Amino acid sequence: MVEIEFRVKVSDSWTLVEFELPNAISPDQLEQILELAPKIDARKGVIISGRGPIWLHSALAHHYHPTRWVAHFDPRVGTVVVQSHDTKLKIGDVIELKAGK
Amino acid sequence: MVEIEFRVKVSDSWTLVEFELPNAISPDQLEQILELAPKIDARKGVIISGRGPIWLHSALAHHYHPTRWVAHFDPRVGTVVVQSHDTKLKIGDVIELKAGK
Repeated sequence: MVEIEFRVKVSDSWTLVEFELPNAISPDQLEQILELAPKIDARKGVIISGRGPIWLHSALAHHYHPTRWVAHFDPRVGTVVVQSHDTKLKIGDVIELKAGK
Repeated sequence: MVEIEFRVKVSDSWTLVEFELPNAISPDQLEQILELAPKIDARKGVIISGRGPIWLHSALAHHYHPTRWVAHFDPRVGTVVVQSHDTKLKIGDVIELKAGK
């Protein structure tokens, strides 16, 4: 069994996908988790946020690869773009979520 | 300036790319780091290992997307596949490095 909670927040230009894991997960649950990941609008960017293993974040980033751009929320530095099909955003850009960019 | 050390180990079927950061890095150094990332044989898988932010691991995983498969080393659970073009390996598989698989 997999326990994970996904919360989604949508702005004009991005979708925030936040996950919460009540318990530690194991790699053999990864595929199932990706199946549970929210369907989002690929024309917008996606921000992945949540406390969990690097391989979960990385697998979600790959899962959402078709979206406009992919970023991870890092509590220390902010929302960091790691993939982009958007000419206005490049890898390493930090997005101000409040500005609704 | 960016300070990062990359170490590479190559087996028959994978390349281990280990990084070491003497100092914290900031997102605006990410593109430069990707330029410094070792060129590897795309016919093999790649294992990304190192203590660093999630966005660095995720950006490296995307950078190495054309390789056979991409995994992250997690000291708690092992080497976890997050992307695969190899029919024998799927997302969530844990690779035994010692076996040289």
